[in-house]
Amino acid sequence: MHILITGAAGMIGRKLMTRLTKDGGLNGQPIDRLTLVDVVAPERPPGFNGTVELISRDLADDGAAAAVIAARPDAVFHLAGVVSAEAETDLEKGYRVNLDGTRELLDAIRRTGDGYRPKVMFTSSCAVYGAPFPDAIGDDFHLTPLTSYGTAKAMSELLLADYTRRGFLDGVGVRLPAICVRPGKPNKAASGFFSSIIREPLAGEEALLPVSESVLHTFASPRSAAGFLVHAASLTREQLGDRINLAMPGVCCTVGEQIEALRRVAGDTVAARIRRAKDDLVERIVAGWPHRFDARRALALGFTAEKDFDEIIRVHIEDDRGGRVAA
Amino acid sequence: MHILITGAAGMIGRKLMTRLTKDGGLNGQPIDRLTLVDVVAPERPPGFNGTVELISRDLADDGAAAAVIAARPDAVFHLAGVVSAEAETDLEKGYRVNLDGTRELLDAIRRTGDGYRPKVMFTSSCAVYGAPFPDAIGDDFHLTPLTSYGTAKAMSELLLADYTRRGFLDGVGVRLPAICVRPGKPNKAASGFFSSIIREPLAGEEALLPVSESVLHTFASPRSAAGFLVHAASLTREQLGDRINLAMPGVCCTVGEQIEALRRVAGDTVAARIRRAKDDLVERIVAGWPHRFDARRALALGFTAEKDFDEIIRVHIEDDRGGRVAA
Repeated sequence: MHILITGAAGMIGRKLMTRLTKDGGLNGQPIDRLTLVDVVAPERPPGFNGTVELISRDLADDGAAAAVIAARPDAVFHLAGVVSAEAETDLEKGYRVNLDGTRELLDAIRRTGDGYRPKVMFTSSCAVYGAPFPDAIGDDFHLTPLTSYGTAKAMSELLLADYTRRGFLDGVGVRLPAICVRPGKPNKAASGFFSSIIREPLAGEEALLPVSESVLHTFASPRSAAGFLVHAASLTREQLGDRINLAMPGVCCTVGEQIEALRRVAGDTVAARIRRAKDDLVERIVAGWPHRFDARRALALGFTAEKDFDEIIRVHIEDDRGGRVAA
Repeated sequence: MHILITGAAGMIGRKLMTRLTKDGGLNGQPIDRLTLVDVVAPERPPGFNGTVELISRDLADDGAAAAVIAARPDAVFHLAGVVSAEAETDLEKGYRVNLDGTRELLDAIRRTGDGYRPKVMFTSSCAVYGAPFPDAIGDDFHLTPLTSYGTAKAMSELLLADYTRRGFLDGVGVRLPAICVRPGKPNKAASGFFSSIIREPLAGEEALLPVSESVLHTFASPRSAAGFLVHAASLTREQLGDRINLAMPGVCCTVGEQIEALRRVAGDTVAARIRRAKDDLVERIVAGWPHRFDARRALALGFTAEKDFDEIIRVHIEDDRGGRVAA
């Protein structure tokens, strides 16, 4: 089996490669070839013995999508994208990468023809939703994004569904909840604190909490994100029907509950490394995000996330900290 | 006031021009200039004394959108589009006209900058919805189109909303119900019979009814369609909020009720000109269409359609038959 991953150098791309390499296959078929695409050079996955092709290109560039599709990968994980803040500050780049890049990829698949019909797993986002929200967002709630990032994701979902309906490919859109705990350095995303208030204390460092502890949000680990994508690849057209874009399950909890979980898992000393530093702008941005999902279809289709936030912290300690916590 | 109408040669474009010419203004401002664009040559509206520019061009062509926007029209009615059946048989043309044409237009407005921020009224369609449906489709029901036409309309709605949110323009997306009675010759659209079972009998001709009388659908007259667009132009950003794409109201009735209305308005002889000729394909296509809307927001914002199907028939007799019915 030949697998193409776009955005392979990103955090979820790397987590997915780790998972696929560990599994050694997808849907019961051994993986013998990986094509990894990203605008920055993707890394060769350690422990994978098949053919690996590393490509540094922007899919929206002329001919780039056709070039990566020419080898007819059996499964495509399309993760490439410009993040929310950048899509808002650089509108043209955001639409070019997040919409045109996706469309070029899907059109390259469509134009191949000749019976070629790969599975296409697309990472969408909860940013497709826009306030005001019901208490829990159901599967048939409309998409009214309040960012250009969310808009391009919602537009891409629609195209993916249409191309699936027309039989050019078998698509699944996976709307990720907040992925937490993100490994690595703190970033400037408004959502960054959800991860940093766990990650930094576990590493012995102070973290700033810019919002009140009553803020509610839905989380899944990076390991779950990779799991969603792998599970999505196993679903048949019959199971999915025409509505192929799905909100994923996650752990819904408050920031206060996040902190309590940290205390339970790692102790008082670690939890005491969180310092309250209210930031009204961040509080306001976060208030516009969806809080809770009633992800019935995804659960019925067998998607699973962590049971509680304690488990999300343990996954981070296991996967990203080699099991160690800074005392 | 300078008004641009795309798709000006189409049925709704002509009805809109008739309405605007009759009103002589829009939002209380006199209209002194009309720019009419269509791929086929639009006609100069009779009775309009201002400047008229007629342009035969495809908005998706390089530079076409920038050229029509260069004169900075105050209000843009964007009606241009390829119909449902053609977008399904010619996928590339459908997306090119219905998505790229819209995007080029909105991008031409965005790139103008310099404080230019026109009103943009966009004709979307109930084809943005896809079965299965609730009994009545509410304003927050998700868009899962089952045609490439509906997909491009839904994608365009999203872009219109994002560009409105970002302040490049003031957009309103108007999701039209079935427009009935369409004047003119019968066409091959699967929905054609909804109009022809009224129009042909009133003209003294036989009409075929391909579906059962229990089929339920929502209708508004061409006069109402023009009215929706004119009313949309009067709404402020404050009234609309961020959710600028709206399902329009209409008359929800069965085909049997359509026929009873025809009998009431025009008599038994006219109604007897409908011949039952079941067509399973048409019946199946129609079954996948939305039936009924709970268009609360549009009603609250002051959009109005006809009260009942009798009124829709009377509007047709008045506007398209000079008040005459073939005995």
